[in-house]
Amino acid sequence: MSTNVIHPTAQVGAGTTLGEFCVIGPNVKIGTGCKIGNHVVIHPDTVVGNDVRIDDQASLGKWPMKAANSATTKEQDLPPLNVGDVCIVGTGVVLYRGASIEGKVLMADLCTVRENVTVGRGTIVGRGVTIENFCTVGRYCKLESESYLCAYCTLEDRVFIAPGVVTSNDNFVGRTQERFKHFKGVTVKKGGRIGACSVTLPGVVIGEDALVAAGSTVTKNVDPRVIVMGKPARVVRPVPTEQLLENQGWVDA
Amino acid sequence: MSTNVIHPTAQVGAGTTLGEFCVIGPNVKIGTGCKIGNHVVIHPDTVVGNDVRIDDQASLGKWPMKAANSATTKEQDLPPLNVGDVCIVGTGVVLYRGASIEGKVLMADLCTVRENVTVGRGTIVGRGVTIENFCTVGRYCKLESESYLCAYCTLEDRVFIAPGVVTSNDNFVGRTQERFKHFKGVTVKKGGRIGACSVTLPGVVIGEDALVAAGSTVTKNVDPRVIVMGKPARVVRPVPTEQLLENQGWVDA
Amino acid sequence: MSTNVIHPTAQVGAGTTLGEFCVIGPNVKIGTGCKIGNHVVIHPDTVVGNDVRIDDQASLGKWPMKAANSATTKEQDLPPLNVGDVCIVGTGVVLYRGASIEGKVLMADLCTVRENVTVGRGTIVGRGVTIENFCTVGRYCKLESESYLCAYCTLEDRVFIAPGVVTSNDNFVGRTQERFKHFKGVTVKKGGRIGACSVTLPGVVIGEDALVAAGSTVTKNVDPRVIVMGKPARVVRPVPTEQLLENQGWVDA
Repeated sequence: MSTNVIHPTAQVGAGTTLGEFCVIGPNVKIGTGCKIGNHVVIHPDTVVGNDVRIDDQASLGKWPMKAANSATTKEQDLPPLNVGDVCIVGTGVVLYRGASIEGKVLMADLCTVRENVTVGRGTIVGRGVTIENFCTVGRYCKLESESYLCAYCTLEDRVFIAPGVVTSNDNFVGRTQERFKHFKGVTVKKGGRIGACSVTLPGVVIGEDALVAAGSTVTKNVDPRVIVMGKPARVVRPVPTEQLLENQGWVDA
Repeated sequence: MSTNVIHPTAQVGAGTTLGEFCVIGPNVKIGTGCKIGNHVVIHPDTVVGNDVRIDDQASLGKWPMKAANSATTKEQDLPPLNVGDVCIVGTGVVLYRGASIEGKVLMADLCTVRENVTVGRGTIVGRGVTIENFCTVGRYCKLESESYLCAYCTLEDRVFIAPGVVTSNDNFVGRTQERFKHFKGVTVKKGGRIGACSVTLPGVVIGEDALVAAGSTVTKNVDPRVIVMGKPARVVRPVPTEQLLENQGWVDA
Repeated sequence: MSTNVIHPTAQVGAGTTLGEFCVIGPNVKIGTGCKIGNHVVIHPDTVVGNDVRIDDQASLGKWPMKAANSATTKEQDLPPLNVGDVCIVGTGVVLYRGASIEGKVLMADLCTVRENVTVGRGTIVGRGVTIENFCTVGRYCKLESESYLCAYCTLEDRVFIAPGVVTSNDNFVGRTQERFKHFKGVTVKKGGRIGACSVTLPGVVIGEDALVAAGSTVTKNVDPRVIVMGKPARVVRPVPTEQLLENQGWVDA
């Protein structure tokens, strides 16, 4: 006998299997051929595509938490969470209502994707990664383990974010009313790459196919196709030709 | 029929709702008007106030784990976990027995608060934050996502800790018996702020309303109301007047 | 009546207790005297020793997730997860099939150990730590909270990794076919130590009993018994005699 609690209004497609002790809320739609683990919670109205793998203890479609003191979270209407076909959702992942995840995205264990975020097709969201609210992440990006995207970041396609990268969006560090006008995340243009354990300051734009070396502090915009390094980061040389995006032979799949 | 396992000695207040598959242990006391998610575990003796939101898979009131090799965890008696009124406890949060959380605290998803810790009213503990044992956190602080408070830190009121900040407490880096006498966390005085991805060394005191710039390594005490920057961090200028705590017009709520 | 779902082919030793809503899969073997929390999932074939503590929401023995775009995860046969006697597995921990954990290891809350990893006896894996695939971790190591071991790292015995440490393995930062030949993690020789919030570049070898100061960027090999510091890290002085491993009087337990 099933131990799952599935609301009568939820739709579960043919060939989809569930583990034990799952909770599937009202108006949830799950496609065909999905493989859902144990203790998975899918909150009301969430839409899950076909052939999606969801591992144990993932929680999909939760409403944001409004703190008395939050600077960026406002009460709002939010569309249901949408998870595209052939996505993989790791153990303990938390996805918010108001996020939209295209197909073939891997969300590794214990990552979080907040509300008002879009993640493009084929992107990898690494273990423990946080994508805060109001971020846009392109297609075929890699956000490696434990990297951090603050609110209001934009990553274009094929962006690479190494482990432990931190971004920031508040030059006023939590003070003044003025700051609310200036909240600005980090923008990484197509094919831009940020090396391990670097921090990039609010509003910085990393140019197309540029590379930030590991351990850097990026305080101003980075031109396309150059490598920057240091604290503050300065240009050291062009990106080697063989590393340029156009020379990888990559085709969108 | 309820799927929750509630010990007969547990008290659940009027208007409190639970999701599915929760486990509420002996002598737990939960106030009125709380909203508890699915797969939540509340360990014995825990006290939860009124109007508290607890999201899926949170685990409250666990006993510490004693490793053979741990330098700072000793077997001990611990008072029950106490979570104040109007707190919010995110998905997958882990709170230890022996922690005391005042009212209106937001503990975002996947954060951990260890034993022998107090967290003051209105503070925000960000996503994935760790507050290790023997820390004291004041009122109306913000510990942003993925910041790390090692054991024996003290944050006074209105302290701001940016994403990815790391603190440390052992100048002997795990060697010598001597180190046990000198374990000393970081102290941040009232209104002090630490920028993204900075690391602060053991025993350092960040002065009142001082500011550590992003990406710094703080090796010695920081005077009040100055900005320090770099590796090692040095004074660069005073904190702008409009950013001083006294000029924010903030009232404790 | 038990709420646990235990497969008829699973073996649970005498004196082992389970909380509520656990899922124990086919051919799992659990030793005697274990204490298993609530909502714990143990996947097929996993072997758990005697006197192991496993806390709430831990998930043991999961199969890797294969992303379309992953550079290092290949489909493979994997031996079952093995967890040795007297280990402690924290809340929300995720352990993969194909990992082998010796006895007396502490895996703190929300850490992850991937496939093709071995962890030696008595090691502490801190809160939120990630050990990626193809790592070898020796005996009596300490990986403190939120440190990160990328794929292909080797830590010998008695290694100390401070909070927030990041390692990397790809000098080509996600580009060129060439990189697949050169993936190389970080090696830390016996007794080596890495300070808080440091980043170490691919292929670097930290010598025996060497020490990397907090906040450093390590770009090349470090000789035995020296302290390196800075960005890039340079030798500053020898490790003090009283901090050398041979002078700690430590005995393997």
